[in-house]
Amino acid sequence: MIAPARYAERIGEAARLTARAGLDALLIGVGADLRYLTGYPAMALERLTMLVVPARGPAILIAPRLEVSSARACPAVASGFLDVVTWDETEDPVALLVARLGAELALPTTGIRRVAVSDRTWAIFVLRLQAALPSAIFEVASTITRQLRMAKDAEEIALLRLAAEAADRVIGQVSHGRLIGRSEAEVSREVRERLVAEGHELAEFAIVGSGPNSASPHHEASGRLIQAGEPVVLDIGGTLAGYTSDTTRTIWVGGDDPALAPDAEFVRLYGVLREAQAAACAAVQPGVTCEDLDATARRIIVAGGYGPQFFHRLGHGIGLEAHEEPYLVAGNPQPLQAGYAFSVEPGIYFEGRYGARLEDIVVCGPVGPLVLNRSPLDLQVVDGR
Amino acid sequence: MIAPARYAERIGEAARLTARAGLDALLIGVGADLRYLTGYPAMALERLTMLVVPARGPAILIAPRLEVSSARACPAVASGFLDVVTWDETEDPVALLVARLGAELALPTTGIRRVAVSDRTWAIFVLRLQAALPSAIFEVASTITRQLRMAKDAEEIALLRLAAEAADRVIGQVSHGRLIGRSEAEVSREVRERLVAEGHELAEFAIVGSGPNSASPHHEASGRLIQAGEPVVLDIGGTLAGYTSDTTRTIWVGGDDPALAPDAEFVRLYGVLREAQAAACAAVQPGVTCEDLDATARRIIVAGGYGPQFFHRLGHGIGLEAHEEPYLVAGNPQPLQAGYAFSVEPGIYFEGRYGARLEDIVVCGPVGPLVLNRSPLDLQVVDGR
Repeated sequence: MIAPARYAERIGEAARLTARAGLDALLIGVGADLRYLTGYPAMALERLTMLVVPARGPAILIAPRLEVSSARACPAVASGFLDVVTWDETEDPVALLVARLGAELALPTTGIRRVAVSDRTWAIFVLRLQAALPSAIFEVASTITRQLRMAKDAEEIALLRLAAEAADRVIGQVSHGRLIGRSEAEVSREVRERLVAEGHELAEFAIVGSGPNSASPHHEASGRLIQAGEPVVLDIGGTLAGYTSDTTRTIWVGGDDPALAPDAEFVRLYGVLREAQAAACAAVQPGVTCEDLDATARRIIVAGGYGPQFFHRLGHGIGLEAHEEPYLVAGNPQPLQAGYAFSVEPGIYFEGRYGARLEDIVVCGPVGPLVLNRSPLDLQVVDGR
Repeated sequence: MIAPARYAERIGEAARLTARAGLDALLIGVGADLRYLTGYPAMALERLTMLVVPARGPAILIAPRLEVSSARACPAVASGFLDVVTWDETEDPVALLVARLGAELALPTTGIRRVAVSDRTWAIFVLRLQAALPSAIFEVASTITRQLRMAKDAEEIALLRLAAEAADRVIGQVSHGRLIGRSEAEVSREVRERLVAEGHELAEFAIVGSGPNSASPHHEASGRLIQAGEPVVLDIGGTLAGYTSDTTRTIWVGGDDPALAPDAEFVRLYGVLREAQAAACAAVQPGVTCEDLDATARRIIVAGGYGPQFFHRLGHGIGLEAHEEPYLVAGNPQPLQAGYAFSVEPGIYFEGRYGARLEDIVVCGPVGPLVLNRSPLDLQVVDGR
């Protein structure tokens, strides 16, 4: 639970960063930035809803009249920190927004020179805003909002932990249940139901990749029946109280035949993966860069001979969104800071044969890592019957 | 089921319209336009997926390597009509896109002068594309795609009908079940479960507004307990085989006490609403404009004395999206054509007291309306016990 007063602080901090960056305003459409700054989980609609944070003066929330009761119910508005300005069905919300912004800044429209729009604002709104602010350079708002959102506070970390623990329980339940002879899609449905039963309001993904499908990182659960003598990748997550879980375990389904135990190649591959994942987690501390962390895991996998089989980045930030900044990828020099939360998820994939991935959510603590997921990381050979 | 060859026809038609409009290319990000043109239900991700339809030469689908197996599985690609160009984790997909587009058009980057991006493309992609195509004017792609998507073909109408019939069954089931003493949220959950049980893959909305909440058009289902002697607005829908249902009925919960029958004001209000909705549906035929249709219903409601209480547009187009073009709103001179599909949903709302809305999905036929929903429109007084 985020205290309502936090939203006023966040909007205030966003306004200060906006002014300091020399921007005239931050324009925040529907999405995670809006939820972060106001607590308003607005639906994405063709009718414009937009938080306007000017470099000086109070922020306002532009909302269609039809949505006004839910807009007023969001914590930032309900607690009196933010006013709602509504527009009617036949009004032009962009003209209204530009007029209000100009009045707030005491500038003519052509005096507005630099604005930032939230990264996921729809093109239809971006292009209309550009037409209505012809003198303005447009930038993405994440240059501002990332400075706020990347470092989670104690309440956010507590929510990420609750979500991670719920996902861990589901991994445990599904790993130890029946798998052999069931389709991936059936197991995927079970994962989603269990995520909700364990407290998630939304079960967003439930990748179940068995046998050769374990080699496809974003495999959708298919009608394929799980067999004894093969690995299964479980990559699951959703949102709990607004914050996201995302964890991956790769298990081996053994059945009752010792001949169907993991083969030597898989055991070796898994060992290299396990070591790479552990090394990257252990390396987490303030000042280490995102690309360094990626390289830490990659070096071990390359040394193990699996470099070409690890063809995605190491991980992504997590919070209100399943994928957000910072991205742990080659070329990203962003240094970690205390409170940054992200996935550490190396994978090794042999197309057509099998693959494995291990993923934990890690928070950068003041002196080292805080790993939120607790499911076993050693290779689990499960019965599956 | 849309035949795979239809996607090739649609892409071809989009390219012809692009050339005819003097545009250099259509750039279609993740969303309904992409589903319409390729059948690809791509996830919205921070990694760019984009269909590029040049004014001349073949279209290509840009996709991140991690998504390539699902990209290749979409009908337009699987049936050989469209090639996928993948990019790796550390590549710049926008640079790749611009290079491929320039090569296709045999133009230098600065020779690309006008492009259209799909309306819901994220700002982060729009701004990067604008930076990479500095000589280009950017427009919204709906000027092209709406010409294709507004007029549904026979297969699409059949799918809309299936979705509407399923939603009608749910309206019938819920109206005749127990309501008194249950919370709106509980009934809303029942609606969602029933939508899925009746064939929807996704139950997207289930508005249950009882008593004073019936006066809030976009009310979210709350913890309020439904009582005898009040109206309940049920506005429900989701997607079935990719196509959307959306229907509203307002019922009166009577219980067993004749004193709790609808009051005279509600009966009068409902009668005016019923007449306005019927008149607008009956007026549907090719050539009638969207604003005319809105005015047809509005005139009756104004004459009935409820003008200020009908403060939203008459309706919205429907198809792959719950809200799409054409919008039935004052100021929209778009004439209807055969195949256009849209909601007709007037409402009358007294804040703090009660309200009512009636909504059918209507297809404009060659000479008149084809109303897809069949639930009773006369005021239903249900027992609710």
